[in-house]
Amino acid sequence: MPNARISLPKAKLSAVLGHLAKIPASLSMTTIQTSPDGLWLYQSGHGLDVQLCFPEARTESRVTTSVNTAALAQMVSVAPGEAVEVEVGPSGLKFGTGGYRASLNGLIVDYDEPPIEAEGGVVVPIAELGRAIRCVRHAVGGVNRPHFRGVQLEFSPGNLRAVASDGYRLARYDLGVDGPLNGKAMLPLKPLDAALGILSTQDGAATLQLHGGRLAVIGEAVRLALTPMGQGLPNVENAIPKSYVAEAIVDPRALIQAIRRVSLLSPQDNRRIDLSFSEQRLEVRGAGDYGEGRDEVPLDTYRGEPLALSLNAVYLYDALSCIEGMARIKISDPRSPIAVEALEDARYLGVIAPILNP
Amino acid sequence: MPNARISLPKAKLSAVLGHLAKIPASLSMTTIQTSPDGLWLYQSGHGLDVQLCFPEARTESRVTTSVNTAALAQMVSVAPGEAVEVEVGPSGLKFGTGGYRASLNGLIVDYDEPPIEAEGGVVVPIAELGRAIRCVRHAVGGVNRPHFRGVQLEFSPGNLRAVASDGYRLARYDLGVDGPLNGKAMLPLKPLDAALGILSTQDGAATLQLHGGRLAVIGEAVRLALTPMGQGLPNVENAIPKSYVAEAIVDPRALIQAIRRVSLLSPQDNRRIDLSFSEQRLEVRGAGDYGEGRDEVPLDTYRGEPLALSLNAVYLYDALSCIEGMARIKISDPRSPIAVEALEDARYLGVIAPILNP
Repeated sequence: MPNARISLPKAKLSAVLGHLAKIPASLSMTTIQTSPDGLWLYQSGHGLDVQLCFPEARTESRVTTSVNTAALAQMVSVAPGEAVEVEVGPSGLKFGTGGYRASLNGLIVDYDEPPIEAEGGVVVPIAELGRAIRCVRHAVGGVNRPHFRGVQLEFSPGNLRAVASDGYRLARYDLGVDGPLNGKAMLPLKPLDAALGILSTQDGAATLQLHGGRLAVIGEAVRLALTPMGQGLPNVENAIPKSYVAEAIVDPRALIQAIRRVSLLSPQDNRRIDLSFSEQRLEVRGAGDYGEGRDEVPLDTYRGEPLALSLNAVYLYDALSCIEGMARIKISDPRSPIAVEALEDARYLGVIAPILNP
Repeated sequence: MPNARISLPKAKLSAVLGHLAKIPASLSMTTIQTSPDGLWLYQSGHGLDVQLCFPEARTESRVTTSVNTAALAQMVSVAPGEAVEVEVGPSGLKFGTGGYRASLNGLIVDYDEPPIEAEGGVVVPIAELGRAIRCVRHAVGGVNRPHFRGVQLEFSPGNLRAVASDGYRLARYDLGVDGPLNGKAMLPLKPLDAALGILSTQDGAATLQLHGGRLAVIGEAVRLALTPMGQGLPNVENAIPKSYVAEAIVDPRALIQAIRRVSLLSPQDNRRIDLSFSEQRLEVRGAGDYGEGRDEVPLDTYRGEPLALSLNAVYLYDALSCIEGMARIKISDPRSPIAVEALEDARYLGVIAPILNP
């Protein structure tokens, strides 16, 4: 079998390899296979299998080798020019343009990757799927135990909901979808982040399907399989208040600025800030060992009696961060969770439990 | 004593505080004193005392307080606008513009900072002093034990020399100076880096003086005192070859690119690359467990017989990095150190011991 010569776009290949290198695995190897469809990259790790095609690099022959992912990523990043010229042989890769020549040793592998399949399922634009997950991801909470925390995808007729919660706050995002899929998958954070990175290099739409206990994501040139955690979220909908007594419309960017200024002086343990809502403005205060600060933000509209409550500054900051346009803050009472919504995007909801004053 | 109100340029104050926060100290506090000369910041740490003036903020009254450096740096960084309005009182600072108000608690201190003095000494432009030290700093070697490694300043009639060496390589930079100073000071890396950072916020020239066992650096609005390490460098001049058999002129940026590409495949322990000099070109090779690579760089001129030798890629990369214009590489023999010079700046010299082939 002769070696196969191909040319790949350097920027896209670098981005893909950077994400592949982040897939948790004991030994990170990427299998490379030339084919008449294009160049396939195969990678398996804890909780995530990836199959990705560069259709621009078609070859007659089918040659397979397996190389260290990080070494390949580094060699591509320093290769000269905007296209990477590669010769794929069974025992590794050869690079080179001009006076530069390099070879990367590969393992001889002899196999065909079992295809990741999805019959039926629902179709979602890749960019929207990424946005839905990124908008709720913050509510997973601290990054101490990323293998035990995750984002849950819930499929029901006409809807794909992404939900995350750490018990103190909740975020959810509803994507309308066509398709008959039912079920849910709680996806652990590390493989999910790697999957989002890989999807961000791809255009178009993907089909999502629950298949053999895994979530398959199948796009035009990418196929992912994610293994959910055994246990999903408890029923978090009960934490969302059913009625509200006050509602404020505020520019989330102005409020984020005020939170940044004032929360510097908040206690390190609960990052408490005190919010006072009144007719025209929202006052934000923080106080701790180093001193105290206050700032104020104009309210576009406020409906309700003047109200005061205390929140963790980080939770409010996170909940506001993915809102474009204006934000709506809804208050039930100062001892119940508040709701944070995007005025122009009903698909997003953030819910934050207040800090109760002693 | 009434509080004193001042206005400070935010960008410069942020830069200064960022550097002050990096001074090694068990508890990092900055003493702030208003005065008719301007606002003084005083800070003491392990191996470095700093006194820095903002002459744009003069006040009639003299008020002193002492605050946590990191908290102050953060509060300044989030303050709105381009000028920071501060009220200095004996028990702390008050900030505020518009709806934003914050107070930072301070310790009441009652003292006058002992002045850092220098009679005589030599005068050096601050920017040139910074460049001299930055050009040799790489040769200090690994950052594992920064408290035990340093850059040596050697004063002799008409010259200030900065020297660093880790035993495998040497870098030196000669600054011509006027003045009668003799002596040397081996400055540990961490306080030296903090001092360079602080000096980078200042213009003009500084007077350098060895005074009471310390190095004083006195500029128009800054005074530093650095404590040298007890032991200086051994006599490293002996390591510099006295004669050379070959000399190559090369573009350091092109050679750095080739080193980056090829050294990826070098062994992790000694980062060995093999260099072959010949009439028109320099060939660079690296080989290790993952594979091998080669690249070539044109030589502007080469005098001597074709020669091959092996070097640590990182050492050559570092030695070339501060050279503007073309570089001259001088070879004595493949088992002796090479010299790396800047063709257009005779003040710089790098020396690297080769890796001897077994």
